[in-house]
Amino acid sequence: MAVTILLADDESLLLLDFEQALTEAGYRVVAVTSGKRALEVLEAAELVVNGVVTDIQFREPPDGWDVARAARVANPAIAIVYMSGNSAIDWASKGVPNSIMLEKPFAMAQLVTAISQLLNGRSIEPTPP
Amino acid sequence: MAVTILLADDESLLLLDFEQALTEAGYRVVAVTSGKRALEVLEAAELVVNGVVTDIQFREPPDGWDVARAARVANPAIAIVYMSGNSAIDWASKGVPNSIMLEKPFAMAQLVTAISQLLNGRSIEPTPP
Amino acid sequence: MAVTILLADDESLLLLDFEQALTEAGYRVVAVTSGKRALEVLEAAELVVNGVVTDIQFREPPDGWDVARAARVANPAIAIVYMSGNSAIDWASKGVPNSIMLEKPFAMAQLVTAISQLLNGRSIEPTPP
Amino acid sequence: MAVTILLADDESLLLLDFEQALTEAGYRVVAVTSGKRALEVLEAAELVVNGVVTDIQFREPPDGWDVARAARVANPAIAIVYMSGNSAIDWASKGVPNSIMLEKPFAMAQLVTAISQLLNGRSIEPTPP
Amino acid sequence: MAVTILLADDESLLLLDFEQALTEAGYRVVAVTSGKRALEVLEAAELVVNGVVTDIQFREPPDGWDVARAARVANPAIAIVYMSGNSAIDWASKGVPNSIMLEKPFAMAQLVTAISQLLNGRSIEPTPP
Amino acid sequence: MAVTILLADDESLLLLDFEQALTEAGYRVVAVTSGKRALEVLEAAELVVNGVVTDIQFREPPDGWDVARAARVANPAIAIVYMSGNSAIDWASKGVPNSIMLEKPFAMAQLVTAISQLLNGRSIEPTPP
Repeated sequence: MAVTILLADDESLLLLDFEQALTEAGYRVVAVTSGKRALEVLEAAELVVNGVVTDIQFREPPDGWDVARAARVANPAIAIVYMSGNSAIDWASKGVPNSIMLEKPFAMAQLVTAISQLLNGRSIEPTPP
Repeated sequence: MAVTILLADDESLLLLDFEQALTEAGYRVVAVTSGKRALEVLEAAELVVNGVVTDIQFREPPDGWDVARAARVANPAIAIVYMSGNSAIDWASKGVPNSIMLEKPFAMAQLVTAISQLLNGRSIEPTPP
Repeated sequence: MAVTILLADDESLLLLDFEQALTEAGYRVVAVTSGKRALEVLEAAELVVNGVVTDIQFREPPDGWDVARAARVANPAIAIVYMSGNSAIDWASKGVPNSIMLEKPFAMAQLVTAISQLLNGRSIEPTPP
Repeated sequence: MAVTILLADDESLLLLDFEQALTEAGYRVVAVTSGKRALEVLEAAELVVNGVVTDIQFREPPDGWDVARAARVANPAIAIVYMSGNSAIDWASKGVPNSIMLEKPFAMAQLVTAISQLLNGRSIEPTPP
Repeated sequence: MAVTILLADDESLLLLDFEQALTEAGYRVVAVTSGKRALEVLEAAELVVNGVVTDIQFREPPDGWDVARAARVANPAIAIVYMSGNSAIDWASKGVPNSIMLEKPFAMAQLVTAISQLLNGRSIEPTPP
Repeated sequence: MAVTILLADDESLLLLDFEQALTEAGYRVVAVTSGKRALEVLEAAELVVNGVVTDIQFREPPDGWDVARAARVANPAIAIVYMSGNSAIDWASKGVPNSIMLEKPFAMAQLVTAISQLLNGRSIEPTPP
């Protein structure tokens, strides 16, 4: 049993770096290279996803904003971290609540801290019975 | 000069209560009864809006989620408070970052505290030059 | 329909001041003068309590710490505000998470802001489905 | 016994408005019209000040930044709210930690919420024995 | 000199994993396998404990809730992280303020981030003189 | 391209430890041994600094408080972490907003978490257009 993070980025080299950082941090990582594949993973009933780390822009729709919204529809408590080189300004209008936007470039520690903070934060607010 | 709040709700009696509470709190309130009117106010160049307090469901589109996104596109720092009787569960997927969802019924002090907290909070995080 | 606050303090004059402040803020207040009565209200099935504002020391057990824990067992999301003249130091060990300790004397605005912040805060953290 | 706020602003009409809002909120207010007078009040041993609400610019030194630092030297836990029409940008470099900057114009509810939040917040973080 | 974390878990393999993660993070770890031993360490005058990371259920009393309360009585500012497989729901009523509940399974980075956040957070709130 | 942290400490051995921890966390580190050198780096137009990690006391002025203020004047959004063995009490009066004070001794994970939290936090608050 493990904490599963869905990681989506279409830049293969970056994807490998992020996957390694999250794996070393103790997360089980499911890495995909498109928003389309990310949605397929979220829809796959056999897998519980605890957090999503997604790039914003992909070669084709859906984009990272869509992926995050779909993930929250499936699980309102799922942790969301966005990564972007030039879409950070859109976060205020297109992001979901309690998400973190990491502007590229960022240090691997920022990524690990961001997803860990959000996952830990779920216990900070009591939840209705 | 004053701090202007755009208030949108299609239930006239509630609208009057909210308007009175915000006015007594010292805000200048622009009250409208539909999402469509809310967007028109946001697009009106002559008026600076500092915060939006909006119901979710209106008799016709746009809904409160759309109003908030449009407001954030125009001003990424604008304060957003949603009010809803039965759409609170959608906040996690349809809300914008740094917004507050008030589930009806709520006390007037919750509304005033929510918008005031968000407006004050803008100064808590330093902003890029 | 209204937001209901259970208010417990055995100093009658203070109780009236707090009750008036919360009522003017738009809350429905159920005021009691002992921890014992507070527990009876929490156990009364016909009443939904959204928040508890309680003194710490009463003439006889249970004390305010006990009242808050019982309220959270019944509803893990209930808002808790403690009021105390000399027990604030015990809050770190006897208080519940996401509660606020108001040291007497405090201004009425602190009481209204405290309970409103906590009630609003429940929507800030997404909740599991 | 009461919660005492030191209020400093050299615009007499504003000072009266702020004093009335804080007094109605339940605070005892000591109003002064210069940073110099504010420091004198802070140095007056017979008065315990729980919070400071200060304008930034005065006709002569010290300015509001100096007043806040002096207040924090005397009491590291004192609540600080700055008010400014055009110095908000300096808050990030000249403000003290855990303070709030209110940019003029602001609604009275923002002022009351700001000082109340900060005073309540002191109990949120446990303090060393 | 170092930052000392008291770690309590009666599952030996997990205890070793947690101890290694915290040690690699730079903490000095005192690992024990029961709540009883944890209390003995807290009572041992020669050792300063800065944070407690504790399982909830042990083979015999005291449980993790008791350990945390005792630690806070000795030091109101001590950082508390709870770990649990099935008692997370009790955190809202049995946990102490400013603590974090980690639900098993969790990634090692969540544990390190949780205790580090709490230790860093002590400096975020000013403390009375 | 990388995230650059300006690190200032006049204790060479500590400086090396901190530099290694931050480098392993994925940050580009510019290490200096005095406040004077730190200011020179901040003034060097060719280098963008995203965060400052500074000791408080140096053999000669400027001290760490001065370095942080200068950094915030140049960039109001820059992340600030102070490290101190005995000046923590001054943080409330001499520190800048949204900074973290690490009291020595601290674990390396606290340093990495502190700077990462602050850098991530900049995206949590929307910024004016």
